[in-house]
Amino acid sequence: MADPKILQTFPNPAPHRDFVIEHTHHEFTSVCPMTGHPDFADITVRYVAGKKCVELKSLKLYFHAYRNEGIFFEAVTNKICDDLGAALAPRSLTIVSDWKARGGFTSRITASFERKSVRRR
Amino acid sequence: MADPKILQTFPNPAPHRDFVIEHTHHEFTSVCPMTGHPDFADITVRYVAGKKCVELKSLKLYFHAYRNEGIFFEAVTNKICDDLGAALAPRSLTIVSDWKARGGFTSRITASFERKSVRRR
Amino acid sequence: MADPKILQTFPNPAPHRDFVIEHTHHEFTSVCPMTGHPDFADITVRYVAGKKCVELKSLKLYFHAYRNEGIFFEAVTNKICDDLGAALAPRSLTIVSDWKARGGFTSRITASFERKSVRRR
Amino acid sequence: MADPKILQTFPNPAPHRDFVIEHTHHEFTSVCPMTGHPDFADITVRYVAGKKCVELKSLKLYFHAYRNEGIFFEAVTNKICDDLGAALAPRSLTIVSDWKARGGFTSRITASFERKSVRRR
Amino acid sequence: MADPKILQTFPNPAPHRDFVIEHTHHEFTSVCPMTGHPDFADITVRYVAGKKCVELKSLKLYFHAYRNEGIFFEAVTNKICDDLGAALAPRSLTIVSDWKARGGFTSRITASFERKSVRRR
Amino acid sequence: MADPKILQTFPNPAPHRDFVIEHTHHEFTSVCPMTGHPDFADITVRYVAGKKCVELKSLKLYFHAYRNEGIFFEAVTNKICDDLGAALAPRSLTIVSDWKARGGFTSRITASFERKSVRRR
Amino acid sequence: MADPKILQTFPNPAPHRDFVIEHTHHEFTSVCPMTGHPDFADITVRYVAGKKCVELKSLKLYFHAYRNEGIFFEAVTNKICDDLGAALAPRSLTIVSDWKARGGFTSRITASFERKSVRRR
Amino acid sequence: MADPKILQTFPNPAPHRDFVIEHTHHEFTSVCPMTGHPDFADITVRYVAGKKCVELKSLKLYFHAYRNEGIFFEAVTNKICDDLGAALAPRSLTIVSDWKARGGFTSRITASFERKSVRRR
Amino acid sequence: MADPKILQTFPNPAPHRDFVIEHTHHEFTSVCPMTGHPDFADITVRYVAGKKCVELKSLKLYFHAYRNEGIFFEAVTNKICDDLGAALAPRSLTIVSDWKARGGFTSRITASFERKSVRRR
Amino acid sequence: MADPKILQTFPNPAPHRDFVIEHTHHEFTSVCPMTGHPDFADITVRYVAGKKCVELKSLKLYFHAYRNEGIFFEAVTNKICDDLGAALAPRSLTIVSDWKARGGFTSRITASFERKSVRRR
Repeated sequence: MADPKILQTFPNPAPHRDFVIEHTHHEFTSVCPMTGHPDFADITVRYVAGKKCVELKSLKLYFHAYRNEGIFFEAVTNKICDDLGAALAPRSLTIVSDWKARGGFTSRITASFERKSVRRR
Repeated sequence: MADPKILQTFPNPAPHRDFVIEHTHHEFTSVCPMTGHPDFADITVRYVAGKKCVELKSLKLYFHAYRNEGIFFEAVTNKICDDLGAALAPRSLTIVSDWKARGGFTSRITASFERKSVRRR
Repeated sequence: MADPKILQTFPNPAPHRDFVIEHTHHEFTSVCPMTGHPDFADITVRYVAGKKCVELKSLKLYFHAYRNEGIFFEAVTNKICDDLGAALAPRSLTIVSDWKARGGFTSRITASFERKSVRRR
Repeated sequence: MADPKILQTFPNPAPHRDFVIEHTHHEFTSVCPMTGHPDFADITVRYVAGKKCVELKSLKLYFHAYRNEGIFFEAVTNKICDDLGAALAPRSLTIVSDWKARGGFTSRITASFERKSVRRR
Repeated sequence: MADPKILQTFPNPAPHRDFVIEHTHHEFTSVCPMTGHPDFADITVRYVAGKKCVELKSLKLYFHAYRNEGIFFEAVTNKICDDLGAALAPRSLTIVSDWKARGGFTSRITASFERKSVRRR
Repeated sequence: MADPKILQTFPNPAPHRDFVIEHTHHEFTSVCPMTGHPDFADITVRYVAGKKCVELKSLKLYFHAYRNEGIFFEAVTNKICDDLGAALAPRSLTIVSDWKARGGFTSRITASFERKSVRRR
Repeated sequence: MADPKILQTFPNPAPHRDFVIEHTHHEFTSVCPMTGHPDFADITVRYVAGKKCVELKSLKLYFHAYRNEGIFFEAVTNKICDDLGAALAPRSLTIVSDWKARGGFTSRITASFERKSVRRR
Repeated sequence: MADPKILQTFPNPAPHRDFVIEHTHHEFTSVCPMTGHPDFADITVRYVAGKKCVELKSLKLYFHAYRNEGIFFEAVTNKICDDLGAALAPRSLTIVSDWKARGGFTSRITASFERKSVRRR
Repeated sequence: MADPKILQTFPNPAPHRDFVIEHTHHEFTSVCPMTGHPDFADITVRYVAGKKCVELKSLKLYFHAYRNEGIFFEAVTNKICDDLGAALAPRSLTIVSDWKARGGFTSRITASFERKSVRRR
Repeated sequence: MADPKILQTFPNPAPHRDFVIEHTHHEFTSVCPMTGHPDFADITVRYVAGKKCVELKSLKLYFHAYRNEGIFFEAVTNKICDDLGAALAPRSLTIVSDWKARGGFTSRITASFERKSVRRR
């Protein structure tokens, strides 16, 4: 499973204001855990930084690490949200995944990080 | 008529937060009960899961079951809303049906499930 | 002038919830009362039904009845709103007319029906 | 400079409700007062009428009158807003001007009329 | 680094109302400080003027001055926001930068100026 | 039936070369002779003039004259080709009609005039 | 299997010239003979008529007759070509079928009728 | 009328090969000689240079000179073709004018220069 | 490397005519042999069958087999052309690969199979 | 001026057939030699390789080298054609440059390399 330690950060260059950073990765691919067929998605990371911003190349490598993972749409979107929330401690964070056509369906999953939403495992 | 027992579910993988799941089926077809001519629609299912998520392949088969049913736009949209509401007990649920051109018209029907909206038959 | 008696209705199939019905007619045409030239529009009828829904084929014939009428953009939009409001007694109703290019202009007129807005003639 | 006396009006055909009228002129052109080069814009007039509606052909001629005027984007948008506000005494009025590419820029100016915003010259 | 003294202003031609001015520059280019590769963006400046408006040609030259600067997406968006905020003392101001594809990503940074957000260096 | 005498011509302004003139009318409407329902089309007239060009306003009025005529797609396209061929004696002439959706179909009819193709009635 | 006897014809209204007739049906659906899943296509019929043209409503009913047939893309395209070739004896005829996404693929099959291509069964 | 002396040229930088130069002006406007209303077009100049290329800024000023001229679509396209043909002595040259909507019509005129097509006035 | 034995065929259902089959796979992905980064392409297979057609599901699995292969754009396109040429012995065959943005570039490779083009290894 | 020695090549992987390679660079920028303002273009390189293919990263660096060069549209297109022709000795080669809007114009220059077209300096 993609290791969140791949993610690297740099200091927020403008901590004097709340501003919105949005990165959309157009080349996300993972594998359906039921059929083994590939899935494709656009993944958008939208956040207001706290003290840290995510470094873009490390974010790309983190996404590449899902290439051969078998994982459901709903689960991968929430894992990315959890991992980036833990790495960045952002003021706010939303993950949107837009999945390409599969069996006549397109899908979109949207998850938002909140400080209080710590995972109870 | 499409049997809601076709619908299968799996446990919500992220019950620690409210997140939005949206599936759009681009290949819905049923039959006009007046003329017998085929109708075509995109059907969007948008919901915040409670304890259960709908399994996508079963949702496809449930939609395929309308292929030769004679049913009005307004009625089919509400039946899908009722069936998925009963199967998922979601925190919220909206069904949008976008109907292709018929006699110079396109149509969109939008219905939302509310727990209190139990059908009084 | 188009006779609202053309409009036919059927009982709301889902009176247990408020849901939105939207029909867009892409082939509306009437005549400019000043120049006699044809005008073309998309007309959208968006409403939450009370006890009655408008039958789609009768709505088409009602719109066809404007084909050779000379009437202004603002007036026809309000007449459709008045006629459908009277025929359906809807919980809410909005009419939007989008007029194709005429002398370098496109136009949109938007009118909403309210029970209290009974016409004082 | 375009003379607002060109603008003609007709009585609001539906004073029993607030409805929105929107005209977009796709062929506006004036001249840059600095360089003498032509500028091109789409101008949208969006208003809720009081007792009067603007007659469309007169609006076209009023816009044509700017063809050889040298005037800045910000100034012409506000002048149109002032002139139509004075001519129509509308319940509300907004002017949006969308300027085509000039030196790698596109521009949009949006001005709204309010009764209290009488110009203090 | 781009010198904000390049920016020139002219008096607000319509101080009697709040109106929105929006300029989008489609030809912004700077250099990645990590790799030296060129970056490309659309930069939108949206503001309600106080006493001053930014002169468009000077804004173009100010943007051209970043052509060979190595600077991060987040930093350049905030610097533009700071520089225009200081030059215009606007009633409100937002900068949006839309960055073209880089390594499978597109990015958008959005920063808003507030009078109280004076930089604490 | 539309009278070809409506068509007016003016002298070819450039008889020293063969050049192509193409007019597309986006507002053609006639009536289905089977059902009485309206049909809508874009009609393109593409020709190399001989001694005469068709005057555009008269062409519009000629097309308007079909508004309430019941006529098949194939027949109207050939009648326009015959009428314009007779009126213009062009070096070449092609008529293309693109019909909007009707019963799930769009249609295109393409007819070319040749001097030798005199109608044998 | 769809019976070609459904197809009806009317006499070519312009036998004095070769002209091209093109009908595109946007609502074709059949069933995959392997999986039983529905397939969707746009089917274009492009032909130069001999003595007969195909009547559009009968063509629609002929296409509807494939709704529950299990048949491959390549086979159905050639069957339509054979059936229309036999019914119309056209001067030329081409069938193009454009199949919607299935397992990450879109497909197009193009077959042309020639008088000499009589099927040797 | 626009004076072809405005056109300036520079030496063909690559006379060792035939290559194609294509400039499209998106801001052409002239005046209808019948009604006085403005017309708008995209004008494309496509040529293989002989010894001379047209300088782009002078071409812009040449096109601006038509701003207040009353001239027909067919005539202006041929005049531009004649003027550029005379100024450039090109190996080949084609002018295409695409006229915006006027009375429900769009128009395209295409004229090609040939050395032998000297105007016989 | 993807094994061409994955490819399965079925008999050409219409050997009595030459017809064109075109399948476009929108989800091809392989790996750059230089950098290890993923590449994405649309791959189109266009052919006139001899005695055999390629079975679509086996073609999908054959394409999936490239998922983790390091191979250049030019090489993979030619390998697919060689493999399908050998498996199908088609009357004609063309492979087109359209590669998504990589370092500011998009690429397209087009290779055609000819019986005489047997590889000399 | 961009040094063609930057260009690197690798052996044609499929010399047994003529196939077409097409790379489009979407981020080309140079400087206008008259005004010093930046110009932007998409540059397409389309060729049939002889013994050598151009390596894509070196092609990117070669294009980046024009970033601060003052050079005309026509000249830069021909220089790229000359440089790639000399470096690759291709069976055929075409360069297309599509220049973004400048003063209301877009431009396209298309140059093809032929072995006989050796530059006579």
